[in-house]
Amino acid sequence: MTRRGVHMAAEMAEQPAVLAAMAARFDAVSASVAAALPGRPAGVAFLARGSSDNAALLGRYAVELATGLPTSLVAPSLLTAYGREPQGFGDWLVVALSQSGETPEIVDLAGRYRAAGATVVAVTNGAQSPLADAAHVTVALEAGPEVAVPATKTVTAQLLATLAVGAGLGGRVVVPDLARLPDRVAAVLADTGPVERAATLLQDVERMAVVARGLCYPAARETALKLQETTGVMAHAFSTADFRHGPIAVTGPGAPAVLMAGTGPADADTRVLSSELAERGAPVVTVGSAPGDDIGWAAGDGATDCILATVRGQQLAYALCDRLGVDPDSPAGLNKVTRTH
Amino acid sequence: MTRRGVHMAAEMAEQPAVLAAMAARFDAVSASVAAALPGRPAGVAFLARGSSDNAALLGRYAVELATGLPTSLVAPSLLTAYGREPQGFGDWLVVALSQSGETPEIVDLAGRYRAAGATVVAVTNGAQSPLADAAHVTVALEAGPEVAVPATKTVTAQLLATLAVGAGLGGRVVVPDLARLPDRVAAVLADTGPVERAATLLQDVERMAVVARGLCYPAARETALKLQETTGVMAHAFSTADFRHGPIAVTGPGAPAVLMAGTGPADADTRVLSSELAERGAPVVTVGSAPGDDIGWAAGDGATDCILATVRGQQLAYALCDRLGVDPDSPAGLNKVTRTH
Repeated sequence: MTRRGVHMAAEMAEQPAVLAAMAARFDAVSASVAAALPGRPAGVAFLARGSSDNAALLGRYAVELATGLPTSLVAPSLLTAYGREPQGFGDWLVVALSQSGETPEIVDLAGRYRAAGATVVAVTNGAQSPLADAAHVTVALEAGPEVAVPATKTVTAQLLATLAVGAGLGGRVVVPDLARLPDRVAAVLADTGPVERAATLLQDVERMAVVARGLCYPAARETALKLQETTGVMAHAFSTADFRHGPIAVTGPGAPAVLMAGTGPADADTRVLSSELAERGAPVVTVGSAPGDDIGWAAGDGATDCILATVRGQQLAYALCDRLGVDPDSPAGLNKVTRTH
Repeated sequence: MTRRGVHMAAEMAEQPAVLAAMAARFDAVSASVAAALPGRPAGVAFLARGSSDNAALLGRYAVELATGLPTSLVAPSLLTAYGREPQGFGDWLVVALSQSGETPEIVDLAGRYRAAGATVVAVTNGAQSPLADAAHVTVALEAGPEVAVPATKTVTAQLLATLAVGAGLGGRVVVPDLARLPDRVAAVLADTGPVERAATLLQDVERMAVVARGLCYPAARETALKLQETTGVMAHAFSTADFRHGPIAVTGPGAPAVLMAGTGPADADTRVLSSELAERGAPVVTVGSAPGDDIGWAAGDGATDCILATVRGQQLAYALCDRLGVDPDSPAGLNKVTRTH
C-alpha cells in the first residue's frame, strides 16, 4: 500500500520549481493577454468552479486594483441551469480557469462568452485541452501531472498566472516580487514545525473559521476548501469585515479561528481580531508575515502574500490529515474533474 | 425582563404587511429605476455588506436573468482598504443596499461610484438617510423600525425590492407572483410545527451545511448568517454545484445538511443530494415547495421562492435560539450599524 498523501506531498514540493517557471514567463503571459485584446476592455469576468474559483478571486482583485475596471466572478448556474445567454460582453475579457481544462461546464460557458463577443483567455495546466480550444489565448500552467485529488501546485500556479493576466491590462500594475517568490515558497515548505504545532492545537476540532481580508482572502477561501475536502472539518472562510459584525459568534472554546494576514493595507484589520477572539475563549492561530505570527512566511509584496498563505493552508490540511489517519490523495467520493449537472 | 426574542418575533410577523406594501409599489419602483437611467446600462453592480449582501446576490441574479448584462457584487475592501477608485463605470447602474442607510463604508462608496459616473440607486429602510442623500434614486423599504439585531423584515423587503430593480431594466423580466406572496409568507409564519421538529433534530448540533443553487442560494446564505449570528452554530452555506465536488465531506453523523429548493430549473440538482447525504449518515432537513419536504411553503414562481426560503431560515434561527436559551434580539457583542475600519 502506498503511503498516505505521497502524491500531495510530492506535488506541494514541486511548487517552487513550477512558480519559478511561471515567474520566468510572467511578462510573456502579460504580453499575450494584452496582444489578444482589441483595446482596453470594458470589464473583466472570471469563470471557474472549486479551487480554480479561489484563484479567480485573486485575479479579480488584481485586475480591479490595477485598473479600477468593472470585474466579476461569473455565476455559472445562471447560464447552465437557467439558460440565460450573455449580453453586452462584446468588449469584455473573460478569463476561464480549469486545472484540467476539461470541466464541461467551464468549457461550455467559455464558448458561449466567446460567441457573445468576449475575448476569452484560458488558464489551464496543459496547453492542449478542450478549454484551450475554446479560448483565444491559453496561459498554460505547465505544472506537470497532478495526481492527488486536492489541487495544490496547479492552484498556486493559477494564482501567479492571474497576477500576470492583471499585469497585462496595464494601469497601476500589481507587481509581484517574482525574483524572491520561489525561495520564499521553498522556505515555507521546509519549515514544518510551526504547522505541526498548530495541527496539535486543531486536530480534535470539528469546526473553525479561516479569516482574512483583501489579497489574503482568496487564500483563506482556498484553505477552508482544502480543509473541508481532505479532513471533513467544517472550516468556514470569512472576510474580516463581515466576520466582525456577526459571524464571530461562531468562535469560542473548541471553535478556533485561523487568521491570515500579510503586510498589505487590509491586513492590520485582521490582526486586530486576535484580542476579540481571545476574549471569546477561541483558540487563535495566526498565519502571516509579521514577527510573532504562529505560522510565518518571509514578508514580500501584498500580491504574492496570497500564494504564501495558500501554501501554509495546504500544509495545515496535510498535517491534519496525517493526525486523523486520512489519505489526502484520494478523499472518499471525490473526483478530479468537476462535472456539474 | 423582556421575553427573549420578542422584537425578532414581532418583526418577522410584520413581513406579510411589509411585503404587501412593497408589492403594491413594485411597478412604481421599477419605473423609478428605469427613469433614472439615461439608457440601457452597460452593467449593474451591487454594493452591500452582511445580510444586505445576501439581498444583493438575489438582485444580481434577477438582473442577469432578466437582461444577460454584466453584473457584479462590489468588493468594498478594494476601494476602502486599498484606495482604488472605480474606472469605466460611466454607463453602469450601482445599487447600494443598507438597511439603516447609515453604514459609513456603503455611503462612502456609493458617493465614489456616483462621482465615477454611475447611476446610483439606494435601497434603504427609510426615505431619509445618508445613503439616500448619496443616491440618484431611493427605494424605501418602509418596513418600520427594526429593533432586533438580526435583520428580518428589512431583508425580505430588500429581496423583493431587488426584484423590482431587476424588472426596471426590462429584458426577459423575472415577474414575481406578487398577488399571492403576502399570503404565502403569512401561511409560512403560521406553520411553526415543522420548524420545531427540525429544531429538535438540530438543537445539539455545532456545525451544519445549508445548501442551495440558483435563486434559492441567497436564502441559504442568509439562513447560514442568521444561524451564525444568533445561535453561534457553524452554519456554512454552499452552492449545490460546488458542495457536491468536495465540501460534502464536511457532513456526516452530527453534521447535518439543510437543503433549500423551490421549483426552478436549478432546484432539482439540490434535491438529488438527499440520497448522497443519507449514505454519509448525515441528517438532512429539506426546506422547499415539493410535497414531502420537511419544512414547506406553497409553490410559486422561482423568483419569490428565495423570500419564502429566507423566512423559513429566520424561523429556524428563532426556534434554535429558544432551545438554546439565547436572546436573538441582542446577541452578545453585535451592533445594528456595520462599521468597517
